[in-house]
Amino acid sequence: MDGAYAFEKPLGFHDRPPALMARMEALTARWLELFARYGYRRVSTPALEFQATIGRYARVAPAKMFPLFDAEGRLVVLRPDMTTPIARLAASTLRSTPLPLRLSYAEPVFRLPQAGEEGQAERWQVGVELIGVGPGAGDLEALVVAAEALIAAGVPAPAFVVGDAALVPLVFAALRLKEAERSALETALLRRDFAAFSAAAGRIGGDVGAALAALLGPLQPERADALGRSLRALTRASGDAAAVDVARAVEERLSALLDLLADAAALFPDVRWLADPAFVPDLEYYTGIVFEGYGQGAGAPLVRGGRYDHLLGRFGREAPATGFALDLERTLAIVEVPLPPRPRTAIRIQKGNRRQAFEEARRRVAAGETVELVEEREDGIGDAGGAIGATGEGGAGHRAGGARTGEGGAGDGR
Amino acid sequence: MDGAYAFEKPLGFHDRPPALMARMEALTARWLELFARYGYRRVSTPALEFQATIGRYARVAPAKMFPLFDAEGRLVVLRPDMTTPIARLAASTLRSTPLPLRLSYAEPVFRLPQAGEEGQAERWQVGVELIGVGPGAGDLEALVVAAEALIAAGVPAPAFVVGDAALVPLVFAALRLKEAERSALETALLRRDFAAFSAAAGRIGGDVGAALAALLGPLQPERADALGRSLRALTRASGDAAAVDVARAVEERLSALLDLLADAAALFPDVRWLADPAFVPDLEYYTGIVFEGYGQGAGAPLVRGGRYDHLLGRFGREAPATGFALDLERTLAIVEVPLPPRPRTAIRIQKGNRRQAFEEARRRVAAGETVELVEEREDGIGDAGGAIGATGEGGAGHRAGGARTGEGGAGDGR
Repeated sequence: MDGAYAFEKPLGFHDRPPALMARMEALTARWLELFARYGYRRVSTPALEFQATIGRYARVAPAKMFPLFDAEGRLVVLRPDMTTPIARLAASTLRSTPLPLRLSYAEPVFRLPQAGEEGQAERWQVGVELIGVGPGAGDLEALVVAAEALIAAGVPAPAFVVGDAALVPLVFAALRLKEAERSALETALLRRDFAAFSAAAGRIGGDVGAALAALLGPLQPERADALGRSLRALTRASGDAAAVDVARAVEERLSALLDLLADAAALFPDVRWLADPAFVPDLEYYTGIVFEGYGQGAGAPLVRGGRYDHLLGRFGREAPATGFALDLERTLAIVEVPLPPRPRTAIRIQKGNRRQAFEEARRRVAAGETVELVEEREDGIGDAGGAIGATGEGGAGHRAGGARTGEGGAGDGR
Repeated sequence: MDGAYAFEKPLGFHDRPPALMARMEALTARWLELFARYGYRRVSTPALEFQATIGRYARVAPAKMFPLFDAEGRLVVLRPDMTTPIARLAASTLRSTPLPLRLSYAEPVFRLPQAGEEGQAERWQVGVELIGVGPGAGDLEALVVAAEALIAAGVPAPAFVVGDAALVPLVFAALRLKEAERSALETALLRRDFAAFSAAAGRIGGDVGAALAALLGPLQPERADALGRSLRALTRASGDAAAVDVARAVEERLSALLDLLADAAALFPDVRWLADPAFVPDLEYYTGIVFEGYGQGAGAPLVRGGRYDHLLGRFGREAPATGFALDLERTLAIVEVPLPPRPRTAIRIQKGNRRQAFEEARRRVAAGETVELVEEREDGIGDAGGAIGATGEGGAGHRAGGARTGEGGAGDGR
């Protein structure tokens, strides 16, 4: 090799060797089968999309996208998420298919690695989009299928944080905060910097500051009631009829969030469910329920999702929608994926028996067995001597027929 | 939608709707399982690679690649083939894994659509690479597994054309052709323009022209003998010892090619096997046996492969290698892929029974059934009325429980 980059791949890109790929394949298949049982049908979209459509509406900051030019000189991006392309697909390729659409996918998405990030430019996402179903049934379906997915993967101690992207803006509107106040408070919540939020609320002070402080921490029915009462009192006192309506909307949303969590907790008593009214997603297109799912040992969300009722409309087919994306490799980092053993029969090829060796291989393969053709050198030592170590994933057993193959796979590590 | 590109995708890129994706998924799974039984383990490589490595060694003309710049300003390309990245992987990520390596893949590769081409910029390829096994056993293994793949897909009237990338250059060397003559003859073969080749051979004339003309058409043992004899006579008459050696190499390669085809034909009597000594692949890195597989109704090869004994060395791990890539969608265009029926049970969500409806859904899913949650509107008409037509692929039957779902999927296209 005569280049400087012989063993290098572009920044943030990685090979997937057999041992990792077998686990990725097994978990992907398990998830897609789960989604299929809930009625989701797999689709695929291009790796490249126009900056003017997908790039513009995706939930990813422009600095994180891979820009390039297509054959006609138009600015394109490597697909930075799946939700926006699937919204485009639902409104174009599938425009004649009646709603609701239940679509699933398993694809890599691409983001330029940022300083301090994990450095994965190509992340495999497996997920679903439920298009054409409103909050009443759709939000619970998204939570149910996401929880089922974490359970099916064997994620230890699964937990969900559920919020409503509309809540914080509505509370700010009901409290008639000044633009500068809103901005400081929202930035603090976006960064999950609750100390900064409390400090900002404290500077506002009084009943308004107290109402803001009540947003923090897991929501219980009593706290929701208290927050609702306090907003109602404050808005009535303000004499602003619009603010009173907004306060009522907050109460309704808090109540719907609690109902949703009560149903989820009843369906999945072994999953931890937290309602967080101060959840501000970093993804701009969310309009309602938003959620993140975690597991013990995972430093970042394994699944992220939420309701996006206006995205389809941007592609000309108004429809409510929700969905979520699971991070495949982040999940694999904390779960075991047992792989079925695949015992191998080595079939030796010696001078003069080539045809017979392949006849035996074909017979065994047709019967569902796994074979490994081994060429013997003239000196009687297998040409593939060192190679016999490369057995199948999880291949613990070995057949008696032919030569026996050993364990190995050194260097296969993920 | 307010952009000009609302429903457009970059030139040559396409969505894969559920009906097509289900067939792609089923055939991919069938092929990967076949490869696994022959000992091949799936790997994955990045969608982006450096122009300086993969771009340079790939079998694709630079004009067909997607060039772009990575975060560090280096020139990268969207992976134009899988063989070169897997050679890099075998020499880097898997450098400690002993040979032979049997690796499989199922990934899209990217080529800028050229004028007059089918216009698929993103083609799904499914294939294998056999690294560390020489021609004796390796070439037959590649043909056997490729033939098994066409048969497993149900390709009608499978046929293979098999050549040797070294033959034509060796024949030209034995005949001590002038550079201009070689170039005209080779270009004609590359374009499969046999009339132009015959005309060029005719202009050379005499015994040399006759020997060249003998390259054309399917090789039979008698024709191989005649070609060998004629080369031997011509080179002896020339008094050039090197040319005599080259003629002997041609005879050996013709004999090996015929032996290979005899074994393949004995193993697969229902497949048509043609030895073509004039096969000039358009892929520069091939060093030995090259082949293309066809099926009735396919206007282009369904599978292409061959031996590339010097590619690994460019990445610092000398090893003989062979492999092939199947074109997934080209194959799907001419075969039926029966999909297992997936009958659905519709579960109605009415006001007040949300939790119970999802409990029933979870129970049925856990039992392996497929469900579809249908939200009823207050007026008693399903919110998803029009949507019930979206059934699973091949979902002919329907369960009695809950509401019955109808057929549909209009607009899903192929």
